[in-house]
Amino acid sequence: MSNPVLVEVTRGSMVESRHRGIVAVVDGDGGKVMSLGDVETPVFPRSAVKSMQALPLVETGAADRYGFGEKELALACSSHSGEPEHMRLAGDIVARAGLGEADFECGCHWSSQQDVLIAQARAGDKPNQLGNNCSGKHAGFLCLACHAGVDHHGYVGYDHFVQQSVRDVMADLTGTSLGHDNCGTDGCSIPTYAAPLDRIAHGFARMATGTGLGPDRARAATRLMSACMAEPYYVAGTGRACTALMSMAPGRIFAKTGAEGVFCATVPEKGLGIALKCEDGSTRGAEAMIGAVFAKLFEADEELSSRLADWSTKTMKNWNGIEVGQIRPVGELG
Amino acid sequence: MSNPVLVEVTRGSMVESRHRGIVAVVDGDGGKVMSLGDVETPVFPRSAVKSMQALPLVETGAADRYGFGEKELALACSSHSGEPEHMRLAGDIVARAGLGEADFECGCHWSSQQDVLIAQARAGDKPNQLGNNCSGKHAGFLCLACHAGVDHHGYVGYDHFVQQSVRDVMADLTGTSLGHDNCGTDGCSIPTYAAPLDRIAHGFARMATGTGLGPDRARAATRLMSACMAEPYYVAGTGRACTALMSMAPGRIFAKTGAEGVFCATVPEKGLGIALKCEDGSTRGAEAMIGAVFAKLFEADEELSSRLADWSTKTMKNWNGIEVGQIRPVGELG
Repeated sequence: MSNPVLVEVTRGSMVESRHRGIVAVVDGDGGKVMSLGDVETPVFPRSAVKSMQALPLVETGAADRYGFGEKELALACSSHSGEPEHMRLAGDIVARAGLGEADFECGCHWSSQQDVLIAQARAGDKPNQLGNNCSGKHAGFLCLACHAGVDHHGYVGYDHFVQQSVRDVMADLTGTSLGHDNCGTDGCSIPTYAAPLDRIAHGFARMATGTGLGPDRARAATRLMSACMAEPYYVAGTGRACTALMSMAPGRIFAKTGAEGVFCATVPEKGLGIALKCEDGSTRGAEAMIGAVFAKLFEADEELSSRLADWSTKTMKNWNGIEVGQIRPVGELG
Repeated sequence: MSNPVLVEVTRGSMVESRHRGIVAVVDGDGGKVMSLGDVETPVFPRSAVKSMQALPLVETGAADRYGFGEKELALACSSHSGEPEHMRLAGDIVARAGLGEADFECGCHWSSQQDVLIAQARAGDKPNQLGNNCSGKHAGFLCLACHAGVDHHGYVGYDHFVQQSVRDVMADLTGTSLGHDNCGTDGCSIPTYAAPLDRIAHGFARMATGTGLGPDRARAATRLMSACMAEPYYVAGTGRACTALMSMAPGRIFAKTGAEGVFCATVPEKGLGIALKCEDGSTRGAEAMIGAVFAKLFEADEELSSRLADWSTKTMKNWNGIEVGQIRPVGELG
């Protein structure tokens, strides 16, 4: 089966490129609300499951011990753009546990935002680990290890307490077996586990509804997703999709992207979990898809649905500012 | 018909993302040597046809008048990375026609190479039109207009002498009708015309063989492609695919990429033209495809074929330098 074309990129009056996708929307009991493409193929959710990966931080009490408010929790679930405020807060969090930039194990890169990168270069800065898009998650990992009294060195390793804790939570939420067989290494060096998209979507529906979760886990899930929805700038950054979507409907949309064209999301008021993957791994394809999925799910709220549909279609301009084409949802999402 | 998956992106032992593609390899008489996917769908070749777009510059004598050697001709066919030498030469060329940076109509952007961008930012530079990846082509356009005694203002416009000349040459080479119906606006503001991939591949086979071309056009085509093969740094830049491929087999491979996952190429010694498009528009997919196509076409030369196959498979490392996966040709190109 070929996954369906869900996004077209146009130029003039013609279609120039096409993005295929897989979409699973599931309720708390695992009932399928929307299913496009092969939702049973294992997919690496990458950074789209950072809110799941942050559950041990909250459940163990580490977040409370180190004073995590909503901004800190949102940053722990983030793939941020490495803007100065993101970097400052990541450093501030680990300082509360007596640690510093050198204790991170995520690696360095420049900001993903060109204007921030240029400002950093002009200021004579060099990339450091606080600027890694995953530094918020890693700050959470470091706090989790310190709170548990475990040596934090090697916390990115498969067998370390931190990754064992993450793996256990994710296996529980998705109802899948996670281990070496379906494991890869993520950009920030932690293990990432492939699971069928419909299982991942179900995991998010359970986070949104608490269905079948113990009370501590259900509370932690609500607390983390509420923090992201309350402080969406800390989940991504200026002009980014996750930030824009959650800002558009405060408290009604939770959305988190992952590398290689993934989005995981929930609509809390409907008790739905969403997971999608752009087959080719492109961000522009995945962003158009998630916007269109939300537009469909909120059809009853015409005003919001229309804003989401508008957002999901991007007009492309060239270097002279001339409109040259569009990125737009089509087919089942059109 | 779905276009076939030709490239896989792996992580650990699993496939993470997939790229579908269309490939046409054609000889000078239009005979199909390789045909994958729907080669009859119109595709915007974008910058991959810059060598065709430079033919009027050579055929009219403008290139000789303004002292175009191999480096200048290669730059006229280029999508360069905006490195200092590319910018210097683009400025030098138009100065010979009494023009300057302000006469370009391609727009400004920063270098596509992060280290160059950072060096420019540190030096206090701002983007200018010489740094536009298309500035070499536009330098050629400006010289074409000046040599013809035509007002160069508005040379990017559909009805300007320059774009009429380009359109006529491309329609002749591809044997297709090019006009408003299949026209879009390119990143640098000139018209780009969609044509079936097999017709574009045939156009390049004719450039490589001279089949059915007048002697002036055949000579100009050979001169341009020879210049690109002799000076591949001026066609792209440090670490770029076109530069790497042409450097790997001097005089035996001509290759030029275009935005949205396009490559056009020739194998002069075999009289073949190649055009391919990654369905989703991704560069990494198109690069793996063109490397694999060359590896197949040079199968009889085991040493070169093996180097091309190696090049077409990329090992991906994360921010800590750990190998996490591969981009590799599969299926008909595996």
